[in-house]
Amino acid sequence: MTDVSVIGIGQTKVGEHWGTSIRHLAWYAIEAALDDADTTSIDALYVANMMAGHLSHQDHLGALVADFAGMRGIEAVTVEAADASGGAAFRQAVLAVKSGLVETAMVVGVEKITDQSGSAALTAMSTAMDADYEAIHGVTPAALAALMMRRYMYEYGLELADFSGFSVNAHANGSSNPNAMFRNLLKPERFASGPLVAEPVSLFDQAPLGDGSAAVILTSSQRARDMVPKPVAVIGSALAIDHIGLHDRPNILRLGAAEVSAQKAMKEAGLTPDDVDVFELHDAYTIMAALSLEASGFAEAGKGWQLARDGEIGRAGKVPISTFGGLKARGNPAGATGVYQIVEVCQQLRNEAGDCQVDDARIGMAQNLGGTGATAVTHLFRQDS
Amino acid sequence: MTDVSVIGIGQTKVGEHWGTSIRHLAWYAIEAALDDADTTSIDALYVANMMAGHLSHQDHLGALVADFAGMRGIEAVTVEAADASGGAAFRQAVLAVKSGLVETAMVVGVEKITDQSGSAALTAMSTAMDADYEAIHGVTPAALAALMMRRYMYEYGLELADFSGFSVNAHANGSSNPNAMFRNLLKPERFASGPLVAEPVSLFDQAPLGDGSAAVILTSSQRARDMVPKPVAVIGSALAIDHIGLHDRPNILRLGAAEVSAQKAMKEAGLTPDDVDVFELHDAYTIMAALSLEASGFAEAGKGWQLARDGEIGRAGKVPISTFGGLKARGNPAGATGVYQIVEVCQQLRNEAGDCQVDDARIGMAQNLGGTGATAVTHLFRQDS
Repeated sequence: MTDVSVIGIGQTKVGEHWGTSIRHLAWYAIEAALDDADTTSIDALYVANMMAGHLSHQDHLGALVADFAGMRGIEAVTVEAADASGGAAFRQAVLAVKSGLVETAMVVGVEKITDQSGSAALTAMSTAMDADYEAIHGVTPAALAALMMRRYMYEYGLELADFSGFSVNAHANGSSNPNAMFRNLLKPERFASGPLVAEPVSLFDQAPLGDGSAAVILTSSQRARDMVPKPVAVIGSALAIDHIGLHDRPNILRLGAAEVSAQKAMKEAGLTPDDVDVFELHDAYTIMAALSLEASGFAEAGKGWQLARDGEIGRAGKVPISTFGGLKARGNPAGATGVYQIVEVCQQLRNEAGDCQVDDARIGMAQNLGGTGATAVTHLFRQDS
Repeated sequence: MTDVSVIGIGQTKVGEHWGTSIRHLAWYAIEAALDDADTTSIDALYVANMMAGHLSHQDHLGALVADFAGMRGIEAVTVEAADASGGAAFRQAVLAVKSGLVETAMVVGVEKITDQSGSAALTAMSTAMDADYEAIHGVTPAALAALMMRRYMYEYGLELADFSGFSVNAHANGSSNPNAMFRNLLKPERFASGPLVAEPVSLFDQAPLGDGSAAVILTSSQRARDMVPKPVAVIGSALAIDHIGLHDRPNILRLGAAEVSAQKAMKEAGLTPDDVDVFELHDAYTIMAALSLEASGFAEAGKGWQLARDGEIGRAGKVPISTFGGLKARGNPAGATGVYQIVEVCQQLRNEAGDCQVDDARIGMAQNLGGTGATAVTHLFRQDS
């Protein structure tokens, strides 16, 4: 089986890109990744996107983006798994290179969300849920997160303020990331008084949707070592699904898909959570950060929040998370988010993270969730230079 | 590299399934394929779909369908390439099994279109085109096909009636297929007087959109031989893209993506068009059938229509196409169509095509197009029993 490495990364700032079409937005990240890898030869393109059909009236992004990027004749498709599309598309690229049929693959995550009026973006986001049993009742993603958070607070006797560490850390890290949507600091005492979105979820709990694109290039590890000075090896890769509807899960505080995909990826890499130096997780809500840490083996059930309280998620902590601001401060460009996470892990492992750098980061992990964790994609990476 | 074979197939009738939700519709094909392969063990599910986000307010079909089918914990994503989604999803499954990381993969194509009022389906179909340069001007898929057909008629001095052979053949074959949407015969003299959709494209040129689902199961050829009596080997697999906008193509009568993907698949299989016993092509319009035959090497430019005129596309002809009715008579369930094509090729190669059977069919080909051929996926299959 072919070993696979990342040889190029690119990204745009997350935020409002009203004057940029979706094809241009994708191109900016593609161009940066091609420059980074110093190559123009791509055999397959996997586009990660969730909402272009709804918000830009444009599906068929594989052909659209590859065509616009001048990659005619290549293989190109869209991979969709709600807000886990980025991780899912990366997974397909890994499989493609491992198959030996695709020499060099690119993954580009792109999402344009903010130039919409009314509830268009919320309606599009809701397609990640079970349409017939959740969305039809008017339940929103934030409302589902609120149900999980409320249950967690009840089970473990917590208050809203106990989650503050996640958002404070994200904003502290985001303030050092030039591509972050929010670069302001968040004061711990301000956290619990945020305007409520869906009680107890507040504005300071919930990650903001933003426009953005990110791209990575993969090839065999053997070629990678000849092509670039700092290849990053993909040493674990797994995607798993759970019940899509929250009401169907035996325990709504257990992210089953995250658990399965993390265990599979760890097993493939021969690692344990103790080996991970940086973990880009899916902190769309603070409760999701806590539950991801627990599902992935970094904390026991009910104790994920303590890692935030104790400062263990900071750059010098036991498990640094959201090192570029995470979804909360870097911003959440939905279908592109999983690709941002992987780009950021590579920046860390290449020691190119600037002010966001985690010292001596050698093993990195990215975990992308879709629809309250119905889909989870976990990848493990290692410095290969 | 692992060789890959199809070990199970399933399908529903194409038509109106108003009383069936999209998850149930997918399940019926999945259940049939699991029964056919006599297995319950699936490691990865690739869902092919184009319009559920638009028409059923449901994306994230990987998790939804796998969950509903009781396949929790497995890997599942949606693959989208407009109406080439079915072939594209099959391609991902082939790569996954070839990688050695996925032992048994399932592809399910599902589409629910007909229970919509007004222009909802047309609007959803239009997302396959270039939104900013085609759809925005009100161009429809039929209008683009009309531009291609008009040019073809002009270049080669043809009349509408010269295309009749394609639809007459499709309806003749469809009349023998219990899963076909239209089982009526079409008289050659009736063809040219069909109500116009977009001149010269008429109702008898254009394939009808329908609801439906089809599924296939793939595993390594080695396992396949132990599991089922009639495995079908995948001997060629390729996906390619072209300019998405018709106006960008140097020659609108040349399906570049179909040409590249057919040549790649033929090369992988070590075959030429003469070796192909049955060819399920993408006859969304008669002009597309003619152009596919030309792009795939079965006829020279401008001569694809002659194969229909001369009866060479019938069951006893040189290149039997649309043997179960094709898109024209079996019906076109958009994102699921590519999976139907593959199921039908397998029925032929397993000698289980009933009244649609092509004698001594040993090599089969399926070609699925997306958005006037911007995406093309070609697969070649061989009896392996």
